[in-house]
Amino acid sequence: MTSDQSPSAEPGDRDSAWDIGGRTLPPPAGASEQLRESIATTPTPDPAVAPMLPSDAVALSAIVVQADSMTIEMVRSLREQLPVTVTRDVIEGVEVHRVVPAETDPRHDDHLFVYVHGGAFVLNGGEASLVEPILIAHRTGMQVLSIDYRMPPSWPAPTGTDDVMAVYRSVLRERSGHSVALGGTSGGGNMCMVTVQHAIRDGVDVPGALYLGTPGADMTETGDSVFINEGIDRTLVSYSHYVNAVRVYAGDLDLRDPLISPIYGDFGEFPPTFLLTGTRDILLSATARTHIKIREAGSVADLLVYEGIAHADYAREMASPESHHAYSELNQFLLTHLS
Amino acid sequence: MTSDQSPSAEPGDRDSAWDIGGRTLPPPAGASEQLRESIATTPTPDPAVAPMLPSDAVALSAIVVQADSMTIEMVRSLREQLPVTVTRDVIEGVEVHRVVPAETDPRHDDHLFVYVHGGAFVLNGGEASLVEPILIAHRTGMQVLSIDYRMPPSWPAPTGTDDVMAVYRSVLRERSGHSVALGGTSGGGNMCMVTVQHAIRDGVDVPGALYLGTPGADMTETGDSVFINEGIDRTLVSYSHYVNAVRVYAGDLDLRDPLISPIYGDFGEFPPTFLLTGTRDILLSATARTHIKIREAGSVADLLVYEGIAHADYAREMASPESHHAYSELNQFLLTHLS
Repeated sequence: MTSDQSPSAEPGDRDSAWDIGGRTLPPPAGASEQLRESIATTPTPDPAVAPMLPSDAVALSAIVVQADSMTIEMVRSLREQLPVTVTRDVIEGVEVHRVVPAETDPRHDDHLFVYVHGGAFVLNGGEASLVEPILIAHRTGMQVLSIDYRMPPSWPAPTGTDDVMAVYRSVLRERSGHSVALGGTSGGGNMCMVTVQHAIRDGVDVPGALYLGTPGADMTETGDSVFINEGIDRTLVSYSHYVNAVRVYAGDLDLRDPLISPIYGDFGEFPPTFLLTGTRDILLSATARTHIKIREAGSVADLLVYEGIAHADYAREMASPESHHAYSELNQFLLTHLS
Repeated sequence: MTSDQSPSAEPGDRDSAWDIGGRTLPPPAGASEQLRESIATTPTPDPAVAPMLPSDAVALSAIVVQADSMTIEMVRSLREQLPVTVTRDVIEGVEVHRVVPAETDPRHDDHLFVYVHGGAFVLNGGEASLVEPILIAHRTGMQVLSIDYRMPPSWPAPTGTDDVMAVYRSVLRERSGHSVALGGTSGGGNMCMVTVQHAIRDGVDVPGALYLGTPGADMTETGDSVFINEGIDRTLVSYSHYVNAVRVYAGDLDLRDPLISPIYGDFGEFPPTFLLTGTRDILLSATARTHIKIREAGSVADLLVYEGIAHADYAREMASPESHHAYSELNQFLLTHLS
């Protein structure tokens, strides 16, 4: 908890690992009917299939294009359903999208949500980045500035977080940190944590509130839920499916470097932070550990764990009561902490 | 989530259950060294061993006496280490213990912690109830009134919660609800939830703060973690090990009756509530669902999920940083909400 383990702790402890038997997992009776039905019609996640993301640059790019094209379909469908305006812009040489809801909430008139998309550091570039920004803009009535940071294979770390920091610094020239929410899901949550750690290190104002949706806070194979929820998380399925992409993103950096795994960085002076995860999330441990780290350092942090929710399900199963409740809670948190 | 499932939802959904394979679970590298070492030296929990608690009254009583005698050893050892004074008393015909720390915190001078012990509704009567009350008194500097409610097999539900309610009402004749914390772990958390629901129903003041440590909020076999953490939770091991005791406690009542499973009761007007669980807890789902229910109903609720922590480990692995942090957070919550 407070003390980080020695690098050798995990391999050494393999001898004392527990072999856990198989089990039958029914759809979550304690979840909403909508989420339960969705899970009931989802085939059993299979960790034994080949990793989704290869490390070879050409093969990786091909997979990314294919996966993103499906996400772009979802974005286009969302844009037909939800009244938001999306425009492209460039800030400090970094591509961004501005997402403006048709009806802005006057309570958020002076606020801006700076969004950092997820996708294992390689997916969801360009238009594919817009699923959660559109949801956030529509459900909170807030303007969202979504950062389309550069990604591997061409641009390994720390280019992406440098891009985010450049945009964030530019935003701070126009408004106070207190009026800015910074946030994202999965890899985006990771990059927001790194950005806040850099801001604190550099004496730059932290945002007024931070949103970490199931953050990839620890990219080493650490965390109970990495093992417990393998084959149970219908989104990620297995840590092993993403480790190639993480390694490509890390480049020459160790996976324990706080630039790659910010859980090993400093949490002093973190802004008020809102965290989301679920009982089937491979990153449940990463989220819960981050929550405790921030509170140990003396800041406000609020964690919600949804029954039946896998990694980022709240942003994918978007018509579910769980999704509506999660963003409603996020909005309440932002209204409380932004000024 | 908001809507309770129909009683038939779970059996019907068995057809769409997932068969999940075995796995290897290393000691939690993200936990404190102390907790990790303790887990590393714990044999793999085995759900296939016979249920700890039988339903036959004579056999059950024999097991309870044996288990409690070990807990009483722990209580006596704790009392040698920690400077608290314990006295017995009777309130409204109900046995209680008053636990007073050697050094009370002046900030808690006007406060009282009313404690309801856990133990699957059959364990931890008498002196065996004192582990967590002693910890709470010592670590918060607060006076604790621990209720030694009557239990099965002689006294099935609702005798226990009636006892708790009688003591709670008596306490309110001497002080305001705002000055009272009510709380307990496991079955004790369940009974505190029932007590609060009764207080609201009867127009009695709710406590100023509620502590629910990994509450047995749902005694039906519901909740992802009931299935996911079977054989992973070193304390409970398996829901099936306790279902006999729960049935004896429920008597003629259905397990879905809010008297037995308060998750199916009303959460309107709940007091500010502090909840604890961990990544290996069979009642992780029950705790997280309770947290969301209370927040959905508009009250303050704060959830902490500790890496590597099994059911009630924070009260058993009491020298661990996790345990110290958990009670420190509980104390901060009480200082914020009691008056």
